[in-house]
Amino acid sequence: MKIPSLILKQMYTLGSLENVEDGVRFSLKNRLSNATVTQLSEVRINDRQVPLDRLTLDVGGDEIAASQISPTSALAFPLARSVRIHARTGQLDKGQHEISLSFNTEPFGALAFKVKDAIAERVKRTSVPHDKDNDYSPEIVRARQTFVEEYTGVKLQHINKFSFDPSVTQGNIENFTGVAQVPIGFAGPLKVNGEHAQGEFLVPLATAEGTLVASYNRGMKVLNLSGGVTCTVVGDSMQRAPVFVFDNARDGRDFVQWVDQNIDKIREEAEGTSSVAKLTYVDRYLSNKLVFLRFNYTTGDAAGQNMVGRATFAACSWILESYPKICHFYLESNFATDKKSSQINVMRTRGKRVTAECVIPRDVLIQHMRVDPETVHYHAGIANVGAFISGANNNGCHSPNGITAMFIATGQDVANVAESSAGIVYTEVTPEKDLYISITIPSLIVATHGGGTGLATQRECLELLGCVGKGKVKKFAEIVAGVVLAGEISLAAAISSLDWVSSHEQYGRNR
Amino acid sequence: MKIPSLILKQMYTLGSLENVEDGVRFSLKNRLSNATVTQLSEVRINDRQVPLDRLTLDVGGDEIAASQISPTSALAFPLARSVRIHARTGQLDKGQHEISLSFNTEPFGALAFKVKDAIAERVKRTSVPHDKDNDYSPEIVRARQTFVEEYTGVKLQHINKFSFDPSVTQGNIENFTGVAQVPIGFAGPLKVNGEHAQGEFLVPLATAEGTLVASYNRGMKVLNLSGGVTCTVVGDSMQRAPVFVFDNARDGRDFVQWVDQNIDKIREEAEGTSSVAKLTYVDRYLSNKLVFLRFNYTTGDAAGQNMVGRATFAACSWILESYPKICHFYLESNFATDKKSSQINVMRTRGKRVTAECVIPRDVLIQHMRVDPETVHYHAGIANVGAFISGANNNGCHSPNGITAMFIATGQDVANVAESSAGIVYTEVTPEKDLYISITIPSLIVATHGGGTGLATQRECLELLGCVGKGKVKKFAEIVAGVVLAGEISLAAAISSLDWVSSHEQYGRNR
Amino acid sequence: MKIPSLILKQMYTLGSLENVEDGVRFSLKNRLSNATVTQLSEVRINDRQVPLDRLTLDVGGDEIAASQISPTSALAFPLARSVRIHARTGQLDKGQHEISLSFNTEPFGALAFKVKDAIAERVKRTSVPHDKDNDYSPEIVRARQTFVEEYTGVKLQHINKFSFDPSVTQGNIENFTGVAQVPIGFAGPLKVNGEHAQGEFLVPLATAEGTLVASYNRGMKVLNLSGGVTCTVVGDSMQRAPVFVFDNARDGRDFVQWVDQNIDKIREEAEGTSSVAKLTYVDRYLSNKLVFLRFNYTTGDAAGQNMVGRATFAACSWILESYPKICHFYLESNFATDKKSSQINVMRTRGKRVTAECVIPRDVLIQHMRVDPETVHYHAGIANVGAFISGANNNGCHSPNGITAMFIATGQDVANVAESSAGIVYTEVTPEKDLYISITIPSLIVATHGGGTGLATQRECLELLGCVGKGKVKKFAEIVAGVVLAGEISLAAAISSLDWVSSHEQYGRNR
Amino acid sequence: MKIPSLILKQMYTLGSLENVEDGVRFSLKNRLSNATVTQLSEVRINDRQVPLDRLTLDVGGDEIAASQISPTSALAFPLARSVRIHARTGQLDKGQHEISLSFNTEPFGALAFKVKDAIAERVKRTSVPHDKDNDYSPEIVRARQTFVEEYTGVKLQHINKFSFDPSVTQGNIENFTGVAQVPIGFAGPLKVNGEHAQGEFLVPLATAEGTLVASYNRGMKVLNLSGGVTCTVVGDSMQRAPVFVFDNARDGRDFVQWVDQNIDKIREEAEGTSSVAKLTYVDRYLSNKLVFLRFNYTTGDAAGQNMVGRATFAACSWILESYPKICHFYLESNFATDKKSSQINVMRTRGKRVTAECVIPRDVLIQHMRVDPETVHYHAGIANVGAFISGANNNGCHSPNGITAMFIATGQDVANVAESSAGIVYTEVTPEKDLYISITIPSLIVATHGGGTGLATQRECLELLGCVGKGKVKKFAEIVAGVVLAGEISLAAAISSLDWVSSHEQYGRNR
Repeated sequence: MKIPSLILKQMYTLGSLENVEDGVRFSLKNRLSNATVTQLSEVRINDRQVPLDRLTLDVGGDEIAASQISPTSALAFPLARSVRIHARTGQLDKGQHEISLSFNTEPFGALAFKVKDAIAERVKRTSVPHDKDNDYSPEIVRARQTFVEEYTGVKLQHINKFSFDPSVTQGNIENFTGVAQVPIGFAGPLKVNGEHAQGEFLVPLATAEGTLVASYNRGMKVLNLSGGVTCTVVGDSMQRAPVFVFDNARDGRDFVQWVDQNIDKIREEAEGTSSVAKLTYVDRYLSNKLVFLRFNYTTGDAAGQNMVGRATFAACSWILESYPKICHFYLESNFATDKKSSQINVMRTRGKRVTAECVIPRDVLIQHMRVDPETVHYHAGIANVGAFISGANNNGCHSPNGITAMFIATGQDVANVAESSAGIVYTEVTPEKDLYISITIPSLIVATHGGGTGLATQRECLELLGCVGKGKVKKFAEIVAGVVLAGEISLAAAISSLDWVSSHEQYGRNR
Repeated sequence: MKIPSLILKQMYTLGSLENVEDGVRFSLKNRLSNATVTQLSEVRINDRQVPLDRLTLDVGGDEIAASQISPTSALAFPLARSVRIHARTGQLDKGQHEISLSFNTEPFGALAFKVKDAIAERVKRTSVPHDKDNDYSPEIVRARQTFVEEYTGVKLQHINKFSFDPSVTQGNIENFTGVAQVPIGFAGPLKVNGEHAQGEFLVPLATAEGTLVASYNRGMKVLNLSGGVTCTVVGDSMQRAPVFVFDNARDGRDFVQWVDQNIDKIREEAEGTSSVAKLTYVDRYLSNKLVFLRFNYTTGDAAGQNMVGRATFAACSWILESYPKICHFYLESNFATDKKSSQINVMRTRGKRVTAECVIPRDVLIQHMRVDPETVHYHAGIANVGAFISGANNNGCHSPNGITAMFIATGQDVANVAESSAGIVYTEVTPEKDLYISITIPSLIVATHGGGTGLATQRECLELLGCVGKGKVKKFAEIVAGVVLAGEISLAAAISSLDWVSSHEQYGRNR
Repeated sequence: MKIPSLILKQMYTLGSLENVEDGVRFSLKNRLSNATVTQLSEVRINDRQVPLDRLTLDVGGDEIAASQISPTSALAFPLARSVRIHARTGQLDKGQHEISLSFNTEPFGALAFKVKDAIAERVKRTSVPHDKDNDYSPEIVRARQTFVEEYTGVKLQHINKFSFDPSVTQGNIENFTGVAQVPIGFAGPLKVNGEHAQGEFLVPLATAEGTLVASYNRGMKVLNLSGGVTCTVVGDSMQRAPVFVFDNARDGRDFVQWVDQNIDKIREEAEGTSSVAKLTYVDRYLSNKLVFLRFNYTTGDAAGQNMVGRATFAACSWILESYPKICHFYLESNFATDKKSSQINVMRTRGKRVTAECVIPRDVLIQHMRVDPETVHYHAGIANVGAFISGANNNGCHSPNGITAMFIATGQDVANVAESSAGIVYTEVTPEKDLYISITIPSLIVATHGGGTGLATQRECLELLGCVGKGKVKKFAEIVAGVVLAGEISLAAAISSLDWVSSHEQYGRNR
Repeated sequence: MKIPSLILKQMYTLGSLENVEDGVRFSLKNRLSNATVTQLSEVRINDRQVPLDRLTLDVGGDEIAASQISPTSALAFPLARSVRIHARTGQLDKGQHEISLSFNTEPFGALAFKVKDAIAERVKRTSVPHDKDNDYSPEIVRARQTFVEEYTGVKLQHINKFSFDPSVTQGNIENFTGVAQVPIGFAGPLKVNGEHAQGEFLVPLATAEGTLVASYNRGMKVLNLSGGVTCTVVGDSMQRAPVFVFDNARDGRDFVQWVDQNIDKIREEAEGTSSVAKLTYVDRYLSNKLVFLRFNYTTGDAAGQNMVGRATFAACSWILESYPKICHFYLESNFATDKKSSQINVMRTRGKRVTAECVIPRDVLIQHMRVDPETVHYHAGIANVGAFISGANNNGCHSPNGITAMFIATGQDVANVAESSAGIVYTEVTPEKDLYISITIPSLIVATHGGGTGLATQRECLELLGCVGKGKVKKFAEIVAGVVLAGEISLAAAISSLDWVSSHEQYGRNR
């Protein structure tokens, strides 16, 4: 088995070359898959060979003499771990040097490469206090608060007030120092007729935008009077999209055929990293000599971005080991399209694809929204043209308002508003002259497990919605979609009835 | 002056017809501009005339007999106010009725229209407690907390903890009940070479996504070692985009010419609503028989969405009064494109258009990011193809991560991540083999005044950045852009060096 | 089996109601699948029953008395055929009438519906001469030429000159009257290293744009000096995209699951219509209560739009018969996206996806194009940003120029330039400092059989390229791609060297 | 005045270095603006100075000794001309050499630069016969035909038949060898109610797509019965979009301000190149350190792409001379977006923006199209969703079909179908239950002068439409739009009535 030389070179940790007392040190990092080093054949620095007895290696523990490594006494070199090589040949001058290495490994066989690296210089800079051992203790949090106060000259009065033990934020944030307190108002209850969410839900909305809660509340009233909002999750997919570069397009196309033939093994590698992630399909996009593979997974109750990153990396490691013609590889290619609005997300789902719909009886609409179905439908037709010409990712009114407020309240990754902002509104005036209105959110990224969902207020808000525990993420997605439709009908009616500006006058003060 | 009949009809408040003791009541709302009613000529219900002496009117105060209204004793009918008409002719049956009205006004002259409306039915529903007189008192907040607990059966332990007087949230939220506590970590300091932001800034990031703070922090270190990040605001524009419908395209085109000829008066009307908003230009987009006008403003330190709504509404009111051929009008057409990602925002700016750039010396990049300039540049070239084919609004890595974390921390309207998620990354390997990297955020919507910027923790975070007070919004935009570039270089390097997955392993626990 | 009532109603041929001597006539058209009428139970006109003995039917041949139709003497009612019903009950007044029908069919069972139709009025208008029996004879062609001359007062001197028998145009055009003579120039020969096209090709370009042939010729010289252009077809797909409307999203999602379970039968129905079309896969896009199915086929040497239309219609007929919950159905939904530029075509291929690529040695580029690899690559990086912000479907220079000229010369459907105009250019400066340049045309719609490929000059040009006969379409696609790359390198170099304007000065006179 | 060094270097004609009898020769090309060389100070080859008396210069005529050039005896060096420098110092070896030059010019002052160039090698290749003196004579055309026959082994029988003198193709094509004969059928007459086109027009359609002429003809009948089609040109703009690269974004932004201040001078320079082109406005798009200027012109009866290229180049030459901070410049940046479909064209017009619209009476639609207004409108609503999700540039049916057929017939640049394929269809069911249908073609690129419009059959077709002569281009645009709408209503009705596939069966044979 042969490793592409470009991948191989990346084993060397660029920038790791440093002078130590009696020589230099540099590192290799295993970026491919578990391996062992069975022999270190040769190290040359600036074309001068380093005698083997002046070389030692360590993988985080004791240093081992290079001469002691052999097929029967191999050095474990696990994935994502580094081995440091120490050459006791005197220090090097500042500036660039050339290092060449030959060694044997299992399962990659004999490897050899040459790189240029410069002697690293240490830099001292001001930085936020950090405690290697316990970075979430009250003491280090307080130390950071003090540092912030001293650095900025501002006395902290609010961000240092929170109601939970800082240690719950471990894994959610580094340098934890305090909290943003975002106001929560409740709208509803909203009657949801979902497959997972059934009944009335009181909805926590974390926002600072005046009129938002009132507007959603108004829409919920109308949906309730119409028998509730019907919500359905129609798609579920989380992606990671590596790219493989070949010598030419033909090699790329052949690679895709090979991927198809080996999809079962690829799935096995991917799914081996998690008990939850299931690889549903791999989309492929060929352009020039590039092959973009877009891995699609279901990820249980988690949003799953990291889960699918790991799974895809495992699959790609196997691919890289197994398919020799790959020239370059990156785990991400902008095809995922994580934290981005994109046409591919609108088309092919990212996170949950969920639809909320309702037939609003004519009289309900008129009496509670001051507008008739024809006017709302007429405006929707014009708004379609507006969205089409302006190239918008949403032909509706303001779905991100409700989504964002729920995301902040419930500990979602709020940056996913980028993707989750897309929406497709469709209306009809029914034969009975009522209003059918619906919105599909094609890339709603939500979780009821992982990320910020376990934090204090965030988990509490999920509890209020009955969305804590296993198997709740589709229920939560349905509720979000229902809330969004409430906002759509509310604002669509306000715009159509020209009531819009004046309602802002009434509620919104701070702008 | 003639009012388009479709606009006129909208004066009647659909759904307002209700039975009262001795007859019926319904409302007109002034959606055009300040006026007075100089005579009520005739009211017919189901084609039966109502004697004038059985009609009274009120505009929120005392009832006035219809017969008392005359040119010399006119009834003030201000913009956005309603007049209720009370007809003492006995109650009406349930179902639809036809109402016709004739009256005289200044400056619109004689108006007459006919509408159908149904007798409104009152509906009782469960709703969140509300206090008409003071909805932000500790008592009503507590009452809502109790209601939430009783409705859901969940005992509140965290969202009811906050460090400020609830009354500060007035104008920011309705039904205020508590707060979401979002963890804040600090990254930096980051050296910014802006026109407005000059010096080092410690950056508060509110997030629950593990590795985010660490990753931005890593990027900041590299930017600092490169002499800091150069940031420039190159555009500033906030929009509202009404649509005017005509009989045909030719009328629409002629209207645009008229708008051009009257732009000074239109500006005067628009700017008369605010001491801050300045109308810079009006873009026009013609399609079919629709004319989309996109009003572009500067809005001082505010994000300005509501400010420009009011200003545009005032301008449109004057237009509607002055140009008779308009058939329909809506204040928004999806061309703004508020809370949406769109090509027009990428092209023509929404909020601030801001660029951050830096030349990162080769050695700094290699020693601190373990990757050389060529590799980052090569990946950027491939990521461009990925973004182009997938139809993404961003060819960079993850700008919304930093933006969202700063938005939550500083009280921005976080739903604007929809627009603010767009980004254009451009890299070069310089003749000196260093890395030029830059990002333009074409629609960054930020404020240092208004919205949530005055809330407790939010204002505190703005203070930490020195962004409180008049004229700070561009300073804040520059800092945001600088932070974003730190995140770009950090993630681009991680992807390019294949270090990306393993770093998530190290920091991120909760997913 | 139940036919959706909306589909059923469409059996009635709206507008077919006409007065004849002794009564009225109207038509039903079978839009579903082959059937027989086993009984005509009842016909009512304006709610008055028509006695059965006053009703006769015909399917293009003799009239049959309604009473003679029975299960044992059924009336054949094939797909896409009409049955005319003749009711001898006196003529009707002008204006609207209501017709109701009950009848039995195999396999649909008892059908009944009611429609409103108005008595059709005949209109006389000037029209182009037409010969029902032989519309391609020299006589009728001459008659049309005379008509054109008389109608316009222009004496025809050129469009009436052509070198072929008009009858060859049958199936390609109606009202054939003459030809457009589009100048052809030859570029090349171009050396193509394809899988199907191997060797040197002299390329006919039909155009009126000065410098086009010269520019492509220049690019071909450079490609030849670089060893030729490598071309690969990496995708092949032609689509038709029907839409199915349901009561709600949930029904739509369930339908998609049913489609998956019945894909073999659907394929069988689709492929039964042609010996060539093969259904590769059916993509599904759910939005609101709409389900868009995008059928993907390979179509041999034909472009295949009509072939896949027929195949998909057959499949849908079976679906409509078999799945009762469908509320509406249209064979096309704008998702195909025929004759349109679209993101989906760029992503997922329409027609052929073909890549041309070449490594141009540094010296060849400099000596023949007056520009170095770095400058072309630098310009490509900037042009990427230009394409990204402007929302273009092509980040290259001008691929539609060569494509259009070849399309006209070889009888392609030139309107497909809409789709075929998309292009993705990718460049690298190689480690050897040469220029790698490639273009992927993601939706190149070409044929070597069918459409205009059999016409006189068109077929001759295909012969010149060795692309007549079975199995030549990928060869042709490869040649087109090679030609396109020649144009890209030529114009890219001209823009990069600033030579561009002046070359137009030299060659182009007529603008 | 200082020339940016990067621009300056481009004066040297890369690849021009060649050995001649007694030395070497190389060229400078003036790519900036008219100038004179007032002194040649120094020439060094591989760092060895060439004595002045061994240097001669020529600008296409006689050689002049370097020593004879002086401020009072300057050498004219006009824009876009080359000066060849002849150094009589013996031949050079193959491979790279370094040349440095110092000279004085008016108005640029002292210039000096150094470049590397390799000795050019002559290559012999097979090429199409060419006659330098008269490349459009019958003899050279025949020679090319013979060459084609011999090279391919195919006897020409059709492409060598044409009805005009080949010399009319000068400026339209190089290597003219024959013609493509594209069948023309006539549809109509169509009644157009334009501002420029008024009356009935018989429409030549050059196509090989069966049913196309019949389908458009059917639509025209319906439009005529509805009183004709109303057509209006609502926009007119042709672009060229240079890009300027700066050291950083701030310099770019300041440049834009300078452009604004100097817009009158820029306009003067641009408009000085043509009596027709008028610069209407310059749009600017800033990204990173790039400034894209998009020059918008009206261009009379010409399409104008070359005209605006020249005009913009002149304006940019002045800008480059006048604004010293520009680092790079290219005349095109993909922002034009010539020969591309793009969102910016849909938004901001390229060529003509033209709308066709019609109210089709309910009965006309039903009796002639077999479909009612509600069904067409309903389908349009669904097709909007299809276009929105698929990212299409057209929410209508098939406007490029009619456009392409008219483009080929009338000598338009058919590659502009890329841009012209965009369309925005908008429908309403009127209060009278009739169908309002309209299409806006936002980027219809048409000409009645220049390009292929003067060719034989092409000019004849324009004559048939009354579109030859001054001031006819908007008339032609209106007719095209009217034709397009005929096709839209025809196909929309066919799809809506499910008649679509069967009509293809009837007419289309060849696919």
